[in-house]
Amino acid sequence: MVKSVIRGLSPHVAVIDVAHGVPAHDIRAGSLALVRAVQYLVPGVVLAVVDPGVGTNRRAVAVEVGEGEAVFVGPDNGLLAPAVSMVGGASRAVALTAPTYHQPAPGPTFAGRDVFAPVAAHLCNGVDLASLGEELDPATLRPGLLPLPRQEDGWLLAEVLWVDRFGNAQLNVGPEEVTAFGERLALRCKDQLRTGRRCGAYAELGPGEIGVLVDSYGLLALSMDQASAADQLGLRAGDEVAIGEAS
Amino acid sequence: MVKSVIRGLSPHVAVIDVAHGVPAHDIRAGSLALVRAVQYLVPGVVLAVVDPGVGTNRRAVAVEVGEGEAVFVGPDNGLLAPAVSMVGGASRAVALTAPTYHQPAPGPTFAGRDVFAPVAAHLCNGVDLASLGEELDPATLRPGLLPLPRQEDGWLLAEVLWVDRFGNAQLNVGPEEVTAFGERLALRCKDQLRTGRRCGAYAELGPGEIGVLVDSYGLLALSMDQASAADQLGLRAGDEVAIGEAS
Amino acid sequence: MVKSVIRGLSPHVAVIDVAHGVPAHDIRAGSLALVRAVQYLVPGVVLAVVDPGVGTNRRAVAVEVGEGEAVFVGPDNGLLAPAVSMVGGASRAVALTAPTYHQPAPGPTFAGRDVFAPVAAHLCNGVDLASLGEELDPATLRPGLLPLPRQEDGWLLAEVLWVDRFGNAQLNVGPEEVTAFGERLALRCKDQLRTGRRCGAYAELGPGEIGVLVDSYGLLALSMDQASAADQLGLRAGDEVAIGEAS
Repeated sequence: MVKSVIRGLSPHVAVIDVAHGVPAHDIRAGSLALVRAVQYLVPGVVLAVVDPGVGTNRRAVAVEVGEGEAVFVGPDNGLLAPAVSMVGGASRAVALTAPTYHQPAPGPTFAGRDVFAPVAAHLCNGVDLASLGEELDPATLRPGLLPLPRQEDGWLLAEVLWVDRFGNAQLNVGPEEVTAFGERLALRCKDQLRTGRRCGAYAELGPGEIGVLVDSYGLLALSMDQASAADQLGLRAGDEVAIGEAS
Repeated sequence: MVKSVIRGLSPHVAVIDVAHGVPAHDIRAGSLALVRAVQYLVPGVVLAVVDPGVGTNRRAVAVEVGEGEAVFVGPDNGLLAPAVSMVGGASRAVALTAPTYHQPAPGPTFAGRDVFAPVAAHLCNGVDLASLGEELDPATLRPGLLPLPRQEDGWLLAEVLWVDRFGNAQLNVGPEEVTAFGERLALRCKDQLRTGRRCGAYAELGPGEIGVLVDSYGLLALSMDQASAADQLGLRAGDEVAIGEAS
Repeated sequence: MVKSVIRGLSPHVAVIDVAHGVPAHDIRAGSLALVRAVQYLVPGVVLAVVDPGVGTNRRAVAVEVGEGEAVFVGPDNGLLAPAVSMVGGASRAVALTAPTYHQPAPGPTFAGRDVFAPVAAHLCNGVDLASLGEELDPATLRPGLLPLPRQEDGWLLAEVLWVDRFGNAQLNVGPEEVTAFGERLALRCKDQLRTGRRCGAYAELGPGEIGVLVDSYGLLALSMDQASAADQLGLRAGDEVAIGEAS
């Protein structure tokens, strides 16, 4: 329905699906899916909706980046913030308060269809951000909260950002942060102590072996060869993994 | 394959996916997905397939609405009927008996690819409905059966039409039908007696509280805040929910 | 991201999704999904990725069929081979060793986005196969291994190629191979002995009855009416089914 609303208002627009598998209500997972994708998106309007506060007074916003290369449209609940930062930060923002650019709604719970989709289509048609509602100070947009790793007792305390469909567990840690630990790393998670090996490809790993590799976003991931490291280690997004020196 | 067949015959056509998650064999669920979407679809050809009778003598049909603003293509098993009614009713219909407009088929079980997709593409190319097969009386099309709520002993007996991926349970009841019961409603389902509160947004609800709100289709839904009301109440599509006055 | 990379390089290209539900790491399932679809695809570039060897020295390839009607792009691990054969065999092939036609990659594990998508887009833009890397002898491409049925003690030993979302179990057997057994067939699988009946439509079957019908790819499938034959028989892709004369 979202795509049909867009097409009805702006037939020339090409729509590219970024992700549909975000868990219900999970703003953090949505913001991380968006931040992984954003550097690969063509210039245009980015529509994102994970919106448990729909129907309340949470703001609906459009956020411009740079000189208008991209506009992000969605709820102001932290969903958009990491992606907006990643591509340069907000230059302008508006609250979507002008009903002219919305669709009539039989009920208040599907802003994706009734507010965000028509606004995105009108933006694609060249409507200026300022027409869509009250301008707001980008500094008042709700920030996204991405966890940072921290040092403790010789361990690096990391967090699982994402488990992909292969069971790779992406951490909030870049490869340079574990260089000092060498090629074999102690991994402490869920009261297990395991050993991981730095590697460059899944297929370098032996059966049952846990690998630590640079994933396709430049972050470290815990992986296995043709098996799920997340299942093996009992990890889900948000879990802590401590990385240390292997004994 | 359906999309590739359409593109092969009619390269200019834009295809918009309405739904792919209809449970296997569930004509009712398919017809409800279509009726929810239909008022948001741009003018054109609507292709729908939930077709457990494929390969039998069930009719394959194209059904025109109004002056040709929309043509529905699919099996004549009730799948299309509610959506056709919703947008004004059938003005013309044909049985898809002209093999010229089908694809050669290695077997009889995938009419979506071999019959409905090529017919939809030919319609997009301007082929007239009458060329596609034998005209039939729209009054003979198989009706869709949508349940109506009924009164019994001071209760309104409703039915769950749909459980969405958030666990909201949509009922076959509009908000005006429960006005007399006030803001707090008794909900009797699966031998449980629960209380629901009329509200306007999921986030107005407390932890564990069941809300009764007007959903994005204008119908009442049972909902929770960031949790599944359907799981909480043990409800699935087709289940009965009795609504009454809270004591 | 794959689609956005393609659009960024080649905005005119229409992308058609063939399948996204291939089980993780399952090259055989991917190759079978591709071979089922390939005869229905419009001329163009076919991009396929099931790639457990990503990041190793497995070759990334582009394989031309005929006079360039189609080019297949993906890993050289057997994934492409059955589809390439089905549409006439490879006329030319290259290893994708020219980095000019790749995207910069933050890590080595997502060749779909960083290698195969940009190569596919450049091919759509008219870049010649030979520019993409070192030409290779098509005879050295890794073959796909599709199982053939065999005779043993009066039984035909077949294999389940695919279980679709309705629970139909497609076999590697055409209808002419079981003609001699008649209309009722003995089916031996997982130590069960069951009887199947040749039929032309799911709806011809009684409750609990197993049908053997020609599916939409021209192969035999074990089916039930509005129920899952695979669940009933405990079958998954790769399992053996012996077909014989019913007693």
